[in-house]
Amino acid sequence: MAKAVVLLSGGMDSATALAVAKSNACNCFALSIDYGQRNQYELQAAQSVAEHLGVLEHKILTFDLTHFGGSALTDKTYSIPESEATGIPITYVPARNTIFFSLALAWSEAIGAKYIYSGVNAVDYSGYPDCRPEYITALQDLVNLATKKTVEGNAILVKTPLIHLTKAEIILLGQENGVDFSKTVSCYQITQAGRSCGVCDACRLRMQAFKEVQIEDKIDYV
Amino acid sequence: MAKAVVLLSGGMDSATALAVAKSNACNCFALSIDYGQRNQYELQAAQSVAEHLGVLEHKILTFDLTHFGGSALTDKTYSIPESEATGIPITYVPARNTIFFSLALAWSEAIGAKYIYSGVNAVDYSGYPDCRPEYITALQDLVNLATKKTVEGNAILVKTPLIHLTKAEIILLGQENGVDFSKTVSCYQITQAGRSCGVCDACRLRMQAFKEVQIEDKIDYV
Repeated sequence: MAKAVVLLSGGMDSATALAVAKSNACNCFALSIDYGQRNQYELQAAQSVAEHLGVLEHKILTFDLTHFGGSALTDKTYSIPESEATGIPITYVPARNTIFFSLALAWSEAIGAKYIYSGVNAVDYSGYPDCRPEYITALQDLVNLATKKTVEGNAILVKTPLIHLTKAEIILLGQENGVDFSKTVSCYQITQAGRSCGVCDACRLRMQAFKEVQIEDKIDYV
Repeated sequence: MAKAVVLLSGGMDSATALAVAKSNACNCFALSIDYGQRNQYELQAAQSVAEHLGVLEHKILTFDLTHFGGSALTDKTYSIPESEATGIPITYVPARNTIFFSLALAWSEAIGAKYIYSGVNAVDYSGYPDCRPEYITALQDLVNLATKKTVEGNAILVKTPLIHLTKAEIILLGQENGVDFSKTVSCYQITQAGRSCGVCDACRLRMQAFKEVQIEDKIDYV
Protein backbone atom coordinates (compact mmCIF):
# COMPACT_ATOMS: atom_id res chain seq x y z
CA MET A 1 0.00 0.00 0.00
CA ALA A 2 1.29 3.44 -0.94
CA LYS A 3 1.71 6.02 1.77
CA ALA A 4 -0.13 9.33 1.59
CA VAL A 5 0.34 12.47 3.66
CA VAL A 6 -3.04 14.16 4.00
CA LEU A 7 -3.37 17.81 4.98
CA LEU A 8 -6.18 17.78 7.52
CA SER A 9 -7.71 21.03 8.73
CA GLY A 10 -10.80 19.77 10.49
CA GLY A 11 -13.07 21.13 7.75
CA MET A 12 -15.35 19.23 5.39
CA ASP A 13 -13.03 19.30 2.41
CA SER A 14 -9.91 17.85 3.97
CA ALA A 15 -12.00 15.20 5.78
CA THR A 16 -13.34 14.16 2.38
CA ALA A 17 -9.85 14.17 0.86
CA LEU A 18 -8.69 11.83 3.65
CA ALA A 19 -11.65 9.52 3.05
CA VAL A 20 -10.86 9.42 -0.68
CA ALA A 21 -7.18 8.64 0.02
CA LYS A 22 -8.29 5.76 2.23
CA SER A 23 -10.70 4.50 -0.44
CA ASN A 24 -7.78 4.61 -2.88
CA ALA A 25 -6.02 2.12 -0.59
CA CYS A 26 -3.45 4.49 0.85
CA ASN A 27 -1.81 4.22 4.24
CA CYS A 28 -2.63 7.69 5.52
CA PHE A 29 -0.54 10.08 7.60
CA ALA A 30 -2.53 13.15 8.61
CA LEU A 31 -0.86 16.53 9.07
CA SER A 32 -2.54 19.45 10.83
CA ILE A 33 -0.96 22.78 11.58
CA ASP A 34 -1.65 24.87 14.61
CA TYR A 35 -0.87 28.21 13.00
CA GLY A 36 -2.55 30.42 15.55
CA GLN A 37 -5.91 30.33 13.77
CA ARG A 38 -8.76 31.98 15.67
CA ASN A 39 -10.71 28.80 15.44
CA GLN A 40 -8.89 26.35 17.68
CA TYR A 41 -11.85 23.98 17.33
CA GLU A 42 -10.47 23.11 13.90
CA LEU A 43 -7.63 21.13 15.45
CA GLN A 44 -9.95 19.18 17.74
CA ALA A 45 -12.15 18.47 14.73
CA ALA A 46 -9.09 17.31 12.76
CA GLN A 47 -8.22 14.92 15.58
CA SER A 48 -11.73 13.59 15.75
CA VAL A 49 -11.90 13.10 11.95
CA ALA A 50 -8.50 11.36 11.91
CA GLU A 51 -9.62 8.99 14.67
CA HIS A 52 -12.94 8.28 13.02
CA LEU A 53 -11.53 7.54 9.57
CA GLY A 54 -8.37 5.89 10.88
CA VAL A 55 -4.82 7.03 10.06
CA LEU A 56 -1.43 5.52 10.81
CA GLU A 57 -0.27 8.74 12.41
CA HIS A 58 -1.65 12.22 12.99
CA LYS A 59 0.87 15.00 13.54
CA ILE A 60 -0.31 18.36 14.81
CA LEU A 61 2.61 20.75 14.39
CA THR A 62 2.86 24.33 15.52
CA PHE A 63 3.93 27.20 13.34
CA ASP A 64 2.55 30.49 14.46
CA LEU A 65 1.50 32.48 11.39
CA THR A 66 0.32 35.31 13.62
CA HIS A 67 4.00 36.39 13.50
CA PHE A 68 3.28 37.52 9.95
CA GLY A 69 -0.39 38.56 10.30
CA GLY A 70 -2.09 40.03 7.26
CA SER A 71 -5.31 38.04 7.62
CA ALA A 72 -8.54 38.10 9.61
CA LEU A 73 -7.79 34.50 10.60
CA THR A 74 -4.43 35.29 12.19
CA ASP A 75 -4.88 38.85 13.40
CA LYS A 76 -7.70 39.63 15.82
CA THR A 77 -7.69 43.32 14.94
CA TYR A 78 -9.53 42.42 11.72
CA SER A 79 -13.18 41.40 11.80
CA ILE A 80 -14.58 38.41 9.97
CA PRO A 81 -16.82 39.50 7.07
CA GLU A 82 -20.43 38.41 7.40
CA SER A 83 -21.65 39.10 3.90
CA GLU A 84 -20.33 38.35 0.46
CA ALA A 85 -17.64 40.75 -0.73
CA THR A 86 -15.94 41.11 -4.10
CA GLY A 87 -12.29 40.13 -4.55
CA ILE A 88 -10.18 37.90 -2.33
CA PRO A 89 -11.53 38.21 1.21
CA ILE A 90 -9.60 39.23 4.30
CA THR A 91 -9.81 35.64 5.60
CA TYR A 92 -7.12 34.73 3.05
CA VAL A 93 -3.93 33.86 4.99
CA PRO A 94 -0.72 34.87 3.17
CA ALA A 95 0.91 31.83 1.55
CA ARG A 96 -0.86 29.42 3.90
CA ASN A 97 -1.32 26.61 1.40
CA THR A 98 2.23 27.00 0.09
CA ILE A 99 3.51 26.63 3.64
CA PHE A 100 1.26 23.64 4.37
CA PHE A 101 2.19 21.90 1.13
CA SER A 102 5.89 22.45 1.80
CA LEU A 103 5.54 20.84 5.23
CA ALA A 104 3.59 17.94 3.75
CA LEU A 105 6.34 17.59 1.17
CA ALA A 106 9.00 17.36 3.87
CA TRP A 107 7.10 14.66 5.71
CA SER A 108 6.30 12.81 2.48
CA GLU A 109 9.95 12.68 1.58
CA ALA A 110 11.04 11.64 5.07
CA ILE A 111 8.60 8.69 5.21
CA GLY A 112 8.69 7.79 1.51
CA ALA A 113 5.09 8.76 0.77
CA LYS A 114 3.94 8.70 -2.84
CA TYR A 115 1.02 11.09 -2.46
CA ILE A 116 0.12 14.37 -0.85
CA TYR A 117 -3.65 14.72 -0.53
CA SER A 118 -5.34 18.07 -0.07
CA GLY A 119 -8.98 19.12 -0.01
CA VAL A 120 -8.42 22.34 -1.94
CA ASN A 121 -11.38 23.29 -4.03
CA ALA A 122 -11.87 25.92 -6.69
CA VAL A 123 -15.65 25.93 -7.10
CA ASP A 124 -17.56 26.86 -3.95
CA TYR A 125 -14.61 28.50 -2.27
CA SER A 126 -13.68 31.95 -1.10
CA GLY A 127 -11.54 32.92 -4.09
CA TYR A 128 -8.19 32.14 -2.47
CA PRO A 129 -5.43 32.12 -5.11
CA ASP A 130 -3.76 29.03 -3.64
CA CYS A 131 -6.83 26.86 -4.24
CA ARG A 132 -6.88 27.14 -8.03
CA PRO A 133 -5.96 24.36 -10.48
CA GLU A 134 -3.18 26.46 -12.04
CA TYR A 135 -1.62 26.89 -8.62
CA ILE A 136 -1.69 23.12 -8.05
CA THR A 137 -0.12 22.51 -11.47
CA ALA A 138 2.72 24.92 -10.63
CA LEU A 139 3.07 23.25 -7.24
CA GLN A 140 3.44 19.82 -8.84
CA ASP A 141 6.12 21.23 -11.17
CA LEU A 142 7.98 22.54 -8.13
CA VAL A 143 7.60 19.27 -6.22
CA ASN A 144 9.10 17.39 -9.17
CA LEU A 145 12.29 19.45 -8.80
CA ALA A 146 12.36 20.10 -5.07
CA THR A 147 13.43 16.95 -3.29
CA LYS A 148 16.09 14.28 -3.29
CA LYS A 149 13.38 11.66 -3.69
CA THR A 150 11.75 13.25 -6.75
CA VAL A 151 15.10 14.08 -8.36
CA GLU A 152 16.09 10.43 -7.94
CA GLY A 153 13.01 9.40 -9.89
CA ASN A 154 10.44 8.66 -7.17
CA ALA A 155 7.56 10.97 -7.90
CA ILE A 156 5.55 12.59 -5.13
CA LEU A 157 2.11 13.34 -6.54
CA VAL A 158 -0.14 16.13 -5.31
CA LYS A 159 -3.72 14.83 -5.31
CA THR A 160 -6.63 17.25 -5.11
CA PRO A 161 -9.70 15.07 -5.70
CA LEU A 162 -12.13 17.85 -4.76
CA ILE A 163 -10.73 20.63 -6.87
CA HIS A 164 -13.50 20.67 -9.47
CA LEU A 165 -16.42 19.71 -7.20
CA THR A 166 -19.12 21.94 -5.81
CA LYS A 167 -19.58 21.97 -2.05
CA ALA A 168 -22.75 19.89 -2.53
CA GLU A 169 -20.83 17.30 -4.55
CA ILE A 170 -18.18 17.21 -1.82
CA ILE A 171 -20.83 16.32 0.76
CA LEU A 172 -22.05 13.46 -1.42
CA LEU A 173 -18.50 12.20 -2.10
CA GLY A 174 -17.63 12.42 1.59
CA GLN A 175 -20.74 10.56 2.62
CA GLU A 176 -20.06 7.83 0.08
CA ASN A 177 -16.58 7.38 1.55
CA GLY A 178 -17.55 7.34 5.20
CA VAL A 179 -17.03 10.91 6.39
CA ASP A 180 -19.06 11.90 9.45
CA PHE A 181 -19.56 15.61 8.77
CA SER A 182 -20.81 16.24 12.30
CA LYS A 183 -17.16 15.87 13.33
CA THR A 184 -16.03 18.67 11.00
CA VAL A 185 -16.05 22.40 11.59
CA SER A 186 -16.22 25.20 9.02
CA CYS A 187 -17.05 28.40 10.93
CA TYR A 188 -14.41 31.16 11.08
CA GLN A 189 -15.76 32.48 14.40
CA ILE A 190 -17.15 29.47 16.23
CA THR A 191 -18.21 30.26 19.81
CA GLN A 192 -16.53 29.01 22.98
CA ALA A 193 -19.32 26.47 23.25
CA GLY A 194 -18.56 25.15 19.75
CA ARG A 195 -21.52 26.70 17.95
CA SER A 196 -21.08 27.97 14.39
CA CYS A 197 -22.05 31.54 13.55
CA GLY A 198 -24.05 30.78 10.41
CA VAL A 199 -23.10 34.10 8.80
CA CYS A 200 -19.38 33.96 7.83
CA ASP A 201 -18.35 32.91 4.29
CA ALA A 202 -17.49 29.40 5.43
CA CYS A 203 -20.81 28.86 7.24
CA ARG A 204 -22.82 30.26 4.37
CA LEU A 205 -21.16 27.95 1.83
CA ARG A 206 -21.66 24.97 4.12
CA MET A 207 -25.32 25.68 4.92
CA GLN A 208 -26.17 26.30 1.28
CA ALA A 209 -24.56 23.00 0.23
CA PHE A 210 -26.34 20.89 2.87
CA LYS A 211 -29.61 22.52 1.85
CA GLU A 212 -28.90 21.68 -1.79
CA VAL A 213 -28.33 17.96 -1.15
CA GLN A 214 -31.19 17.87 1.37
CA ILE A 215 -29.06 16.30 4.08
CA GLU A 216 -29.25 17.46 7.68
CA ASP A 217 -26.15 19.29 8.92
CA LYS A 218 -25.73 17.96 12.45
CA ILE A 219 -23.45 20.65 13.84
CA ASP A 220 -24.75 23.33 16.21
CA TYR A 221 -25.42 26.81 14.92
CA VAL A 222 -25.91 29.93 17.03
CA MET B 1 12.83 51.99 -1.32
CA ALA B 2 11.51 48.52 -2.06
CA LYS B 3 11.25 46.03 0.77
CA ALA B 4 13.08 42.71 0.64
CA VAL B 5 12.71 39.66 2.84
CA VAL B 6 16.12 37.99 3.07
CA LEU B 7 16.50 34.37 4.18
CA LEU B 8 19.43 34.50 6.55
CA SER B 9 21.03 31.31 7.81
CA GLY B 10 24.21 32.61 9.35
CA GLY B 11 26.32 31.16 6.56
CA MET B 12 28.47 32.95 4.01
CA ASP B 13 26.00 32.78 1.15
CA SER B 14 22.97 34.29 2.82
CA ALA B 15 25.14 37.00 4.42
CA THR B 16 26.31 37.91 0.91
CA ALA B 17 22.73 37.84 -0.41
CA LEU B 18 21.72 40.29 2.34
CA ALA B 19 24.64 42.57 1.51
CA VAL B 20 23.67 42.52 -2.19
CA ALA B 21 20.03 43.33 -1.33
CA LYS B 22 21.24 46.30 0.70
CA SER B 23 23.51 47.45 -2.12
CA ASN B 24 20.47 47.24 -4.41
CA ALA B 25 18.84 49.85 -2.15
CA CYS B 26 16.34 47.52 -0.46
CA ASN B 27 14.88 47.92 2.99
CA CYS B 28 15.77 44.51 4.36
CA PHE B 29 13.79 42.20 6.64
CA ALA B 30 15.84 39.17 7.65
CA LEU B 31 14.19 35.81 8.33
CA SER B 32 15.97 32.96 10.12
CA ILE B 33 14.42 29.66 11.05
CA ASP B 34 15.27 27.67 14.14
CA TYR B 35 14.42 24.27 12.67
CA GLY B 36 16.24 22.18 15.24
CA GLN B 37 19.50 22.20 13.27
CA ARG B 38 22.43 20.61 15.09
CA ASN B 39 24.35 23.78 14.63
CA GLN B 40 22.65 26.32 16.87
CA TYR B 41 25.59 28.67 16.29
CA GLU B 42 24.04 29.41 12.91
CA LEU B 43 21.29 31.45 14.52
CA GLN B 44 23.72 33.50 16.61
CA ALA B 45 25.75 34.09 13.47
CA ALA B 46 22.59 35.16 11.61
CA GLN B 47 21.86 37.66 14.37
CA SER B 48 25.37 39.01 14.32
CA VAL B 49 25.35 39.33 10.49
CA ALA B 50 21.94 41.08 10.57
CA GLU B 51 23.21 43.55 13.17
CA HIS B 52 26.45 44.19 11.33
CA LEU B 53 24.85 44.80 7.92
CA GLY B 54 21.75 46.51 9.33
CA VAL B 55 18.18 45.33 8.74
CA LEU B 56 14.83 46.89 9.60
CA GLU B 57 13.75 43.72 11.40
CA HIS B 58 15.17 40.28 12.04
CA LYS B 59 12.70 37.52 12.82
CA ILE B 60 13.95 34.19 14.15
CA LEU B 61 11.01 31.79 13.98
CA THR B 62 10.83 28.25 15.24
CA PHE B 63 9.64 25.30 13.22
CA ASP B 64 11.08 22.06 14.41
CA LEU B 65 11.97 19.95 11.36
CA THR B 66 13.26 17.22 13.65
CA HIS B 67 9.59 16.14 13.74
CA PHE B 68 10.13 14.87 10.21
CA GLY B 69 13.80 13.85 10.43
CA GLY B 70 15.34 12.26 7.35
CA SER B 71 18.60 14.26 7.46
CA ALA B 72 21.91 14.26 9.29
CA LEU B 73 21.21 17.90 10.16
CA THR B 74 17.94 17.18 11.96
CA ASP B 75 18.46 13.66 13.29
CA LYS B 76 21.41 12.99 15.58
CA THR B 77 21.37 9.24 14.85
CA TYR B 78 23.02 10.04 11.49
CA SER B 79 26.68 11.05 11.37
CA ILE B 80 27.97 13.99 9.36
CA PRO B 81 30.06 12.80 6.40
CA GLU B 82 33.70 13.88 6.52
CA SER B 83 34.74 13.04 2.98
CA GLU B 84 33.23 13.68 -0.42
CA ALA B 85 30.46 11.23 -1.37
CA THR B 86 28.60 10.73 -4.64
CA GLY B 87 24.93 11.70 -4.95
CA ILE B 88 22.94 14.01 -2.73
CA PRO B 89 24.48 13.85 0.75
CA ILE B 90 22.71 12.95 3.97
CA THR B 91 23.00 16.56 5.13
CA TYR B 92 20.17 17.37 2.68
CA VAL B 93 17.08 18.32 4.75
CA PRO B 94 13.77 17.25 3.14
CA ALA B 95 12.06 20.22 1.48
CA ARG B 96 13.96 22.71 3.64
CA ASN B 97 14.28 25.43 1.01
CA THR B 98 10.67 25.00 -0.10
CA ILE B 99 9.57 25.50 3.51
CA PHE B 100 11.85 28.50 4.02
CA PHE B 101 10.75 30.14 0.76
CA SER B 102 7.08 29.62 1.63
CA LEU B 103 7.62 31.35 4.98
CA ALA B 104 9.49 34.19 3.29
CA LEU B 105 6.59 34.44 0.83
CA ALA B 106 4.08 34.77 3.66
CA TRP B 107 6.08 37.54 5.31
CA SER B 108 6.69 39.27 1.97
CA GLU B 109 3.01 39.37 1.25
CA ALA B 110 2.10 40.54 4.76
CA ILE B 111 4.53 43.51 4.68
CA GLY B 112 4.26 44.25 0.95
CA ALA B 113 7.82 43.26 0.05
CA LYS B 114 8.77 43.18 -3.61
CA TYR B 115 11.72 40.82 -3.28
CA ILE B 116 12.71 37.59 -1.59
CA TYR B 117 16.49 37.25 -1.45
CA SER B 118 18.21 33.93 -0.97
CA GLY B 119 21.84 32.86 -1.04
CA VAL B 120 21.19 29.56 -2.83
CA ASN B 121 24.05 28.55 -5.03
CA ALA B 122 24.40 25.81 -7.60
CA VAL B 123 28.14 25.79 -8.21
CA ASP B 124 30.22 24.98 -5.11
CA TYR B 125 27.35 23.40 -3.23
CA SER B 126 26.48 19.99 -1.92
CA GLY B 127 24.19 18.90 -4.76
CA TYR B 128 20.94 19.76 -2.99
CA PRO B 129 18.04 19.68 -5.48
CA ASP B 130 16.44 22.82 -4.05
CA CYS B 131 19.49 24.97 -4.88
CA ARG B 132 19.33 24.53 -8.66
CA PRO B 133 18.29 27.24 -11.15
CA GLU B 134 15.45 25.07 -12.50
CA TYR B 135 14.06 24.77 -8.98
CA ILE B 136 14.16 28.56 -8.56
CA THR B 137 12.41 29.04 -11.91
CA ALA B 138 9.62 26.67 -10.84
CA LEU B 139 9.43 28.46 -7.49
CA GLN B 140 8.98 31.83 -9.20
CA ASP B 141 6.19 30.35 -11.34
CA LEU B 142 4.48 29.14 -8.17
CA VAL B 143 4.97 32.48 -6.40
CA ASN B 144 3.32 34.25 -9.35
CA LEU B 145 0.15 32.21 -8.73
CA ALA B 146 0.28 31.71 -4.99
CA THR B 147 -0.71 34.91 -3.28
CA LYS B 148 -3.37 37.59 -3.24
CA LYS B 149 -0.68 40.18 -3.88
CA THR B 150 0.78 38.48 -6.95
CA VAL B 151 -2.64 37.61 -8.36
CA GLU B 152 -3.61 41.27 -8.02
CA GLY B 153 -0.63 42.22 -10.18
CA ASN B 154 2.07 43.05 -7.63
CA ALA B 155 4.92 40.72 -8.40
CA ILE B 156 7.06 39.21 -5.67
CA LEU B 157 10.42 38.40 -7.22
CA VAL B 158 12.73 35.67 -6.00
CA LYS B 159 16.31 36.95 -6.23
CA THR B 160 19.23 34.55 -6.08
CA PRO B 161 22.26 36.71 -6.91
CA LEU B 162 24.74 33.96 -6.00
CA ILE B 163 23.25 31.09 -7.93
CA HIS B 164 25.88 30.96 -10.67
CA LEU B 165 28.89 32.01 -8.58
CA THR B 166 31.67 29.82 -7.24
CA LYS B 167 32.32 29.95 -3.52
CA ALA B 168 35.45 31.99 -4.23
CA GLU B 169 33.44 34.50 -6.26
CA ILE B 170 30.93 34.71 -3.40
CA ILE B 171 33.70 35.70 -1.01
CA LEU B 172 34.80 38.48 -3.36
CA LEU B 173 31.22 39.70 -3.88
CA GLY B 174 30.54 39.62 -0.15
CA GLN B 175 33.70 41.52 0.64
CA GLU B 176 32.89 44.15 -1.96
CA ASN B 177 29.48 44.66 -0.33
CA GLY B 178 30.63 44.84 3.27
CA VAL B 179 30.20 41.32 4.62
CA ASP B 180 32.39 40.45 7.60
CA PHE B 181 32.84 36.72 7.03
CA SER B 182 34.29 36.25 10.52
CA LYS B 183 30.69 36.64 11.73
CA THR B 184 29.45 33.74 9.57
CA VAL B 185 29.53 30.03 10.29
CA SER B 186 29.56 27.13 7.82
CA CYS B 187 30.48 23.99 9.80
CA TYR B 188 27.85 21.26 10.19
CA GLN B 189 29.37 20.08 13.48
CA ILE B 190 30.82 23.14 15.14
CA THR B 191 32.08 22.51 18.70
CA GLN B 192 30.56 23.89 21.90
CA ALA B 193 33.36 26.42 21.93
CA GLY B 194 32.42 27.61 18.43
CA ARG B 195 35.29 25.98 16.54
CA SER B 196 34.66 24.57 13.05
CA CYS B 197 35.62 20.97 12.30
CA GLY B 198 37.44 21.61 9.01
CA VAL B 199 36.40 18.22 7.58
CA CYS B 200 32.65 18.33 6.81
CA ASP B 201 31.44 19.25 3.28
CA ALA B 202 30.63 22.80 4.35
CA CYS B 203 34.04 23.39 5.96
CA ARG B 204 35.90 21.89 3.04
CA LEU B 205 34.10 24.11 0.50
CA ARG B 206 34.72 27.18 2.66
CA MET B 207 38.42 26.50 3.29
CA GLN B 208 39.07 25.74 -0.37
CA ALA B 209 37.41 28.99 -1.45
CA PHE B 210 39.31 31.19 1.00
CA LYS B 211 42.53 29.54 -0.13
CA GLU B 212 41.64 30.23 -3.76
CA VAL B 213 41.08 33.97 -3.23
CA GLN B 214 44.07 34.17 -0.85
CA ILE B 215 42.09 35.84 1.88
CA GLU B 216 42.47 34.84 5.50
CA ASP B 217 39.44 33.04 7.00
CA LYS B 218 39.20 34.52 10.47
CA ILE B 219 37.00 31.87 12.09
CA ASP B 220 38.40 29.28 14.50
CA TYR B 221 39.05 25.75 13.32
CA VAL B 222 39.64 22.71 15.51
